[in-house]
Amino acid sequence: MTALWLIVLCGVLSIVYAIWATSSVLSADAGSPRMQEIAGAVAEGAQAYLRRQYTTIGIVGVVIFVLLVYFLGLYVGIGFLIGAVLSGAAGFIGMNVSVRANVRTAQAATTSLAGGLELAFKAGAITGMLVAGLALLGVTLYFGFLVHSLKLAPDSRLVVDALVALGFGASLISIFARLGGGIFTKGADVGGDLVGKVEAGIPEDDPRNPATIADNVGDNVGDCAGMAADLFETYAVTAVATMVLAAIFFAKTPILMNMMTLPLAIGGICIITSIIGTFFVKLGPSQSIMGALYKGLIATGILSLIGIAGVIYYLIGFGKLDGVDYTGMSLFQCGIVGLVVTALIIWITEYYTGTDYRPVKSIAQASVTGHGTNVIQGLAVSMEATALPAIVIIAGILVTYSLAGLFGIAIATATMLALAGMVVALDAFGPVTDNAGGIAEMAGLPKEVRKSTDALDAVGNTTKAVTKGYAIGSAGLGALVLFAAYNQDLKFFVADSAHHPYFAGVNPDFSLNNPYVVVGLLFGGLLPYLFGAMGMTAVGRAASAIVEEVRRQFREKPGIMQGTDKPDYGRAVDLLTKAAIKEMIIPSLLPVLSPIFVYFVIYAIAGGGPAGKSAAFSAVGAMLLGVIVTGLFVAISMTSGGGAWDNAKKYIEDGHFGGKGSDAHKSAVTGDTVGDPYKDTAGPAVNPMIKITNIVALLLLAILAH
Amino acid sequence: MTALWLIVLCGVLSIVYAIWATSSVLSADAGSPRMQEIAGAVAEGAQAYLRRQYTTIGIVGVVIFVLLVYFLGLYVGIGFLIGAVLSGAAGFIGMNVSVRANVRTAQAATTSLAGGLELAFKAGAITGMLVAGLALLGVTLYFGFLVHSLKLAPDSRLVVDALVALGFGASLISIFARLGGGIFTKGADVGGDLVGKVEAGIPEDDPRNPATIADNVGDNVGDCAGMAADLFETYAVTAVATMVLAAIFFAKTPILMNMMTLPLAIGGICIITSIIGTFFVKLGPSQSIMGALYKGLIATGILSLIGIAGVIYYLIGFGKLDGVDYTGMSLFQCGIVGLVVTALIIWITEYYTGTDYRPVKSIAQASVTGHGTNVIQGLAVSMEATALPAIVIIAGILVTYSLAGLFGIAIATATMLALAGMVVALDAFGPVTDNAGGIAEMAGLPKEVRKSTDALDAVGNTTKAVTKGYAIGSAGLGALVLFAAYNQDLKFFVADSAHHPYFAGVNPDFSLNNPYVVVGLLFGGLLPYLFGAMGMTAVGRAASAIVEEVRRQFREKPGIMQGTDKPDYGRAVDLLTKAAIKEMIIPSLLPVLSPIFVYFVIYAIAGGGPAGKSAAFSAVGAMLLGVIVTGLFVAISMTSGGGAWDNAKKYIEDGHFGGKGSDAHKSAVTGDTVGDPYKDTAGPAVNPMIKITNIVALLLLAILAH
Repeated sequence: MTALWLIVLCGVLSIVYAIWATSSVLSADAGSPRMQEIAGAVAEGAQAYLRRQYTTIGIVGVVIFVLLVYFLGLYVGIGFLIGAVLSGAAGFIGMNVSVRANVRTAQAATTSLAGGLELAFKAGAITGMLVAGLALLGVTLYFGFLVHSLKLAPDSRLVVDALVALGFGASLISIFARLGGGIFTKGADVGGDLVGKVEAGIPEDDPRNPATIADNVGDNVGDCAGMAADLFETYAVTAVATMVLAAIFFAKTPILMNMMTLPLAIGGICIITSIIGTFFVKLGPSQSIMGALYKGLIATGILSLIGIAGVIYYLIGFGKLDGVDYTGMSLFQCGIVGLVVTALIIWITEYYTGTDYRPVKSIAQASVTGHGTNVIQGLAVSMEATALPAIVIIAGILVTYSLAGLFGIAIATATMLALAGMVVALDAFGPVTDNAGGIAEMAGLPKEVRKSTDALDAVGNTTKAVTKGYAIGSAGLGALVLFAAYNQDLKFFVADSAHHPYFAGVNPDFSLNNPYVVVGLLFGGLLPYLFGAMGMTAVGRAASAIVEEVRRQFREKPGIMQGTDKPDYGRAVDLLTKAAIKEMIIPSLLPVLSPIFVYFVIYAIAGGGPAGKSAAFSAVGAMLLGVIVTGLFVAISMTSGGGAWDNAKKYIEDGHFGGKGSDAHKSAVTGDTVGDPYKDTAGPAVNPMIKITNIVALLLLAILAH
Repeated sequence: MTALWLIVLCGVLSIVYAIWATSSVLSADAGSPRMQEIAGAVAEGAQAYLRRQYTTIGIVGVVIFVLLVYFLGLYVGIGFLIGAVLSGAAGFIGMNVSVRANVRTAQAATTSLAGGLELAFKAGAITGMLVAGLALLGVTLYFGFLVHSLKLAPDSRLVVDALVALGFGASLISIFARLGGGIFTKGADVGGDLVGKVEAGIPEDDPRNPATIADNVGDNVGDCAGMAADLFETYAVTAVATMVLAAIFFAKTPILMNMMTLPLAIGGICIITSIIGTFFVKLGPSQSIMGALYKGLIATGILSLIGIAGVIYYLIGFGKLDGVDYTGMSLFQCGIVGLVVTALIIWITEYYTGTDYRPVKSIAQASVTGHGTNVIQGLAVSMEATALPAIVIIAGILVTYSLAGLFGIAIATATMLALAGMVVALDAFGPVTDNAGGIAEMAGLPKEVRKSTDALDAVGNTTKAVTKGYAIGSAGLGALVLFAAYNQDLKFFVADSAHHPYFAGVNPDFSLNNPYVVVGLLFGGLLPYLFGAMGMTAVGRAASAIVEEVRRQFREKPGIMQGTDKPDYGRAVDLLTKAAIKEMIIPSLLPVLSPIFVYFVIYAIAGGGPAGKSAAFSAVGAMLLGVIVTGLFVAISMTSGGGAWDNAKKYIEDGHFGGKGSDAHKSAVTGDTVGDPYKDTAGPAVNPMIKITNIVALLLLAILAH
């Protein structure tokens, strides 16, 4: 009980930090009236979009809530609501801070780079702490309520189902937010660039471009709100899956409650270390932005190591654990592995997306010979960028499994995600600086300001790729955890088929010899491809709509280009809002419905009855791994490749290979355009897609058991 | 015995057909001296390249031969040699016909489209029949020799190992030929286009472009010789894997020999039906080239159905089979499924790559808004194009498994590949017409000729994609067969550990619960990505070298552009030859060494001893499936996407969206350039890569057993 309250305290601390940081951001100078006017338009557009997105998700959510209550009872339904509402809240609040911080960052950048970094990072840290804090509070408080207030056994089905439903709520928001936000932001970006930069020959963020406000709105709804929902979900799902595994492995042991509390406690302590870490982010004499961010991250990592050791010692000790043949020390070592994996993935992603290394330079170099070679080299880099992260994940699985079996892998994943507050902070400052640059351009601030915001933005490209690599990497490492949760749940129902007659005679066979397993792997494997294709096409369609709209405005109001007439920014925002909402529905439902579809189709093909059920459960289980096997590579290649393309363009703009305006630059713009939906729409949405497939499979088991 | 001789007779028939068709092609009019001069240069370049490629492969081959003889004995080594030499011979002869048919096709096209089609298709059919015939002869004769002359039991280890080694020989040639040829052809194509079309503003195949002969050489060494080696390998490996499974499932039954003969007999009868089918390829009154090709394919399919029924009835009857619970009729039904899967994959690939359907049109449409949207839409199409083929393969696995278990899947795959003669014929006419177009352009033939060869070439783009889809589709369907061969082999050694002490106490666990299996899946999954990245980068490098060389020639000999000086074609060919040979080595060794690497690393990590061996065998087995799960999607997306990009360009050139020279056309050229290494280098090379990983794993088992 005390432990849970301490964890709640950590969650509350994150909110206190967020309130403090928010008031600190809001007290900064908001710039000239012109700047505030622009920022106001961005804020208005972003809020309008999010309102509409949440309304749509709300409808889907209510249907699912009713279904869950009907099939699994009220407490499971409430779990779902908690996950959904908190995930939405983290994104909504973060975004609201972000749309206020942008203009203040632009203003601060007029005096110094350090000032701009400080404000932007603080804004990002608010989102980061809220993501980790709200997720932790949601899971901990609901778990505590079920166990202590309702007096349910921590490993009872109702507790497990309610927690899984909480993860499902978070996942559902996440996939819609990632995809809808991604389509909005990249539709605006690609469409705006095509018609502005390429056709009309006006620079990025030029106020004459009617799509420019939409572009800035997109940064907030996609990169800030969408990303927050994604990491919230990853955090919640991993915590829940680890707790479910603890409930199974330590059932009927005296340490059950403490083992289930462990992932939450690790999350709690790491919120404190993350908050401390944010104060280490300071621009040093070298003026290296990445260096400043790394200082914060490294401080958080080292402090977390100490904190996690303390938490494990306090909760379960370092000695041998009841019921298993590993020790508390082994679990601590798994935590270290989680931190090392995080560090390595960050380092590898920076290598593949930073302007200082071979991959980005090779894309810039390939731009000299044309659009085609730029894209070829970018695709090659994107594919190559998957190899080392995959090897790190493989090594992580091997080491943690040998230390403490499946639970060791789970603890490593939980530790990895415990740093989410800090990692999200690193990422969420990106859209703020991106917006700040846009506002500086539109408000006609001096070139120097734009230079500062551009420098921040280039680092933002890398940290964005890093966060995505981290999110998908944790999914890879967590793959076995989620599959194990499915498998153990299934085992539980089969063993207890006296109470769950549906499972009588079921005998799933997850061996690769079983053709249903191969079929499941292949079907799972196709999901990220189909999903990615849908995301890319949606961006293409949204961008085309924007191109048409901007062309129409230029045609009907010739004064826009002369600066004598004002473009209608609202129309572009409105058009994209409708397009993004419409386009996000079907791809988002793909992973929700797939496990159900596969189950019933295979059940029917395999002849029904217990044999059919066995075949179907095997195929669904294999599908869960199949979706990770290809999803991992699709997601990493897209996010890293996209980041590399973007920074190759920036590298050329810094004066290499002919600089801005050269043919190489034109080719690099093409690569950047291709990379946009790769890195900001399809790629990152694969992560919630993987999770939601897994969570739906777990819920399917629970529903069939009822 | 009689059956084997009849099969040999079928193989011989294919060679008789090839000789007849060759003399028929050679007797056609070879055109003007200028045309012959150009064709001569192409032929010379192609032969020089192939000589060098085979010399390099020869060195690797000799090393492997010595190793195999040392570890597994002379007969296994000889099996390897037979596979390697025949695979090389099929490619070499086919290419030699192709470089003679190109100029004759150009000449024939001066009079009629039908004449051009007839000649080009006949040239393609030679390669097709040689691929199927030589593969069948090699496997059948060596199997007959081992069983009848050496009096070995058909299911003895030596026979199995020798056949697997034959597959390995074919695979080794195949991966080098696919990759080396692919790098050559696309280095020339991309580099030549960039510097010619884009920089110098001269049309494709313009004789002033020093890279143009190299481009034509590339068509022959890549699309003809490389593809022939690939299909030879697919054919041989599938036949061998099916025989190995028969040896296991029907061991000690009286029908053992006939069951092992069955895949060969299906191959034999389908050679006859394919030869008959070639005579149905005739341009009808509608002048539809695709229609003419389909007539041949459909005739072959229907005749094969009857032929396979006869073969099964003759060898094993339609009744219940000894030792298993399915009938000969079930196996016939599996054969039908194999043909249906072939038909569906061809139809789906045509949908995604043909100019008449939505996907290609959508890419053409997206070209209007620029390079970026063209590439985005192309990537979206490439990813989407994987879904339906995967579902067809999944359905194929489900149906054939329910009909006749694993052996049913094997028979379906074998039937699918039995049509290889005809399918290769459909494909191999592509490079001939591509060359014919080049020769027509360079020799200044009238525009009408170019129009005919272009029409043939557009169909060639689709049939090339179709063949690649078919090859990779069969690999997907055959995945379980190859994995089953590995698994059954492993079981055999474990059960017989008295004679194979290395396997004492080994107990592999292929369940998805086993972390070593997940690790294997992920590691296998990364191979196609890393391999693809290497292939793409290699093309980029080779193309850059060509760009530099052509620029140098233009600079040093200004007379070239005025037509007063002749470019040095030989230098470009020579440069590419060296580049391709150098670049193909490391990626080709990746799949050869990976199973060995994974085995020993996991063995060490899992603590050695029987437990370490069990873990390592499980991981290697999972790797085999992992490489297929991602490889299937990588390969299909690349080959279909590349074909779609190419034909989107052709669609625009046909006068849509502004036609040749428009901005849309420029964007489409970019897409085509990106698609080039996708569809002709990295994508198709994934297929042999998958096979070679599987074959090496089988050999690893055999070596460890010794």
